[in-house]
Amino acid sequence: MHFCPHCGAPLTRKIPEADDRPRFVCESCGAVHYQNPIVVVGAVAESEGRILLCRRAIEPAFDKWTLPAGYLEIGETLQEGAARETLEESGYHIVDPHPYAITNIVRVNQVYIMFRCALGDRVAAAGRESLEVGLFTPEEIPWQQIAFRSILKTLELYRTDMEKGSYPVHLFDIA
Amino acid sequence: MHFCPHCGAPLTRKIPEADDRPRFVCESCGAVHYQNPIVVVGAVAESEGRILLCRRAIEPAFDKWTLPAGYLEIGETLQEGAARETLEESGYHIVDPHPYAITNIVRVNQVYIMFRCALGDRVAAAGRESLEVGLFTPEEIPWQQIAFRSILKTLELYRTDMEKGSYPVHLFDIA
Repeated sequence: MHFCPHCGAPLTRKIPEADDRPRFVCESCGAVHYQNPIVVVGAVAESEGRILLCRRAIEPAFDKWTLPAGYLEIGETLQEGAARETLEESGYHIVDPHPYAITNIVRVNQVYIMFRCALGDRVAAAGRESLEVGLFTPEEIPWQQIAFRSILKTLELYRTDMEKGSYPVHLFDIA
Repeated sequence: MHFCPHCGAPLTRKIPEADDRPRFVCESCGAVHYQNPIVVVGAVAESEGRILLCRRAIEPAFDKWTLPAGYLEIGETLQEGAARETLEESGYHIVDPHPYAITNIVRVNQVYIMFRCALGDRVAAAGRESLEVGLFTPEEIPWQQIAFRSILKTLELYRTDMEKGSYPVHLFDIA
């Protein structure tokens, strides 16, 4: 961040009055520009013991498998975002989403909020972000080809919870 | 947003290639500037049946009571943010935070993630954002003077959960 998005003047890095950490401040118009972590929403969508995965058609982790997920957009709830991302990346609707895994990935300023849900109807082909989609039992999941550590951990937790038949909300950090 | 934070050139509102919604795009340097909802973190901190509340010294809702909460900062986990906000606004540490209430407030582009936790030691006075802090049983809570609907709903859910002795994670939307 170098220039004020409001007025175009160069920005200064300083601690504003009544604050305690450096921000991007515009000395020209007085605006303070905060930067905050971004929310990623997604779904662990299950149908009769099988979990929906998408094989990524984009970098990073091209060709690896992942749960459908992406950035929460302005104007939508977390659960709407999870449904949108699942639809976009797999063509499937989701049904009855519940909070499931909350993940801090501080290194990249992201918070993941993954919902467990039932898989609904398939209404479209996989989107341009996916090479293919598939439904996998825990045994069938390509465990060595999962895209991200946060997704791998979420799938591992879900596999254990399927065995127990109990699905508490999980909170974990990826270092 | 009028000017590119990267290069200072005027921004255009348009749908970038391979996207499906309008973004702020810089025709000069090519940067796309996304806008996303912001995370608010806070705590329902209990000590022997009493809940920590802070009376606000700042607008909005000056003079009203609230749970300690504020924006998640870059570089911290959700639970670290909840602890920091509680310390800043009340002077108390929190202990053993668990996800409790997840709230969508789409109208103001906010996602609240509130943790339930035990109240730890008090190590400082209430910060400049609080007129005073207090510990309240559910009967003692100033229900007519709670700052925000999301906080009121969270307290109502917690009161019910205290009666049941069971604290599931709640997800709700504020319209």
